[in-house]
Amino acid sequence: MRRRKKPGSEEKLLSKDKLVVAEPERYKGTWHTYFQQKGEIHVEIGTGRGQFLTTMAERNPHINYVGIEMKEEVLLQAVIKAEEKKLQNIAFLWLDANRLTEIFEDSELQRMFINFCDPWPKNRWAKRRLTYRGFLEIYKNLLAASGEIHFKTDNAKLFEFSLNEFSHCDFQLKKITFDLHQSDLQENITTEYEDKFVQMGKPIYRCEARKRN
Amino acid sequence: MRRRKKPGSEEKLLSKDKLVVAEPERYKGTWHTYFQQKGEIHVEIGTGRGQFLTTMAERNPHINYVGIEMKEEVLLQAVIKAEEKKLQNIAFLWLDANRLTEIFEDSELQRMFINFCDPWPKNRWAKRRLTYRGFLEIYKNLLAASGEIHFKTDNAKLFEFSLNEFSHCDFQLKKITFDLHQSDLQENITTEYEDKFVQMGKPIYRCEARKRN
Repeated sequence: MRRRKKPGSEEKLLSKDKLVVAEPERYKGTWHTYFQQKGEIHVEIGTGRGQFLTTMAERNPHINYVGIEMKEEVLLQAVIKAEEKKLQNIAFLWLDANRLTEIFEDSELQRMFINFCDPWPKNRWAKRRLTYRGFLEIYKNLLAASGEIHFKTDNAKLFEFSLNEFSHCDFQLKKITFDLHQSDLQENITTEYEDKFVQMGKPIYRCEARKRN
Repeated sequence: MRRRKKPGSEEKLLSKDKLVVAEPERYKGTWHTYFQQKGEIHVEIGTGRGQFLTTMAERNPHINYVGIEMKEEVLLQAVIKAEEKKLQNIAFLWLDANRLTEIFEDSELQRMFINFCDPWPKNRWAKRRLTYRGFLEIYKNLLAASGEIHFKTDNAKLFEFSLNEFSHCDFQLKKITFDLHQSDLQENITTEYEDKFVQMGKPIYRCEARKRN
């Protein structure tokens, strides 16, 4: 069930104009000028309440992070976290993932994160999943050579689907795990959703998919 | 626990000289002459009691099948099945998978099957698993361009390990499923072991790994 919007969150979001980029098309191909520092650009698609991306930005000051989210209420929470942490290397875009090619130039990104996206469980919804081959081909163009997509989900069927899609689109899969929190992966930064699932004892699936040169 | 050998199974096996190939090194690079028909050569590593491979041979008379097994007692049961079915397009080798390169020439095989191999669960045993990268590099040499390995297991940890190893060795993964008997894969031929597991309601993991051209 979709929650009712809190009144005023749209206005609040737009007031955070240091962190929420208006007309992000302006920076296509020149995102370094926005951040005023060189360094890799990493994008999270569906950044939600922002725990993951703001923690990443805090730990890696020389990387520039862009969080994309279309639900303004959750995005507002992410923006507030970034404000509180006084982060300089993060930007948020309030838009749909379908618009990625308007925002970024081919090969402009070094890494993309997809964390706990909507599994769209029915077969007829497959094309809406963020790891559907149609999306993956777009991501591949936006990624530089050897760029990577890091993907996490609690949904086994979505993970199975995604492995096949990554492979179909000729990404090289790495560090596939069916139970992230029992694996030996170092330095996992969790999302709010992930924390809840791990507390319930549910396994988290994860993989990395590398663009071939 | 290893069962005690039934007395006499070694002698019985060697008496089946129409189906069990003595000194198989002789046919390296010329397995078509053994079968007296052209057609692809498909090898099952660890053929066990033979239900899978004899059924495949029965259904695909123009493909030549080689079953490799090192335990003589179970191999004897596979050979008896092939005898009863009067199969002409199957051969059995009583040997260890480590000896594959003595038996087959590079690019001589079109397909390999690995069904429910020993998971060797401890980390220090990883190199013994039949999907360890050391083995996969050998299989890759033996496979013709676009040749495939079809892999099934009931062991989630082994499956996770194997996906990573296939990917590391640059195979292209296809048809990954975490629950074969609930998937839409057509025409699955089961092994004896698989039948038992499916009856217990346990999921079977499967994938195909294609050698890149």
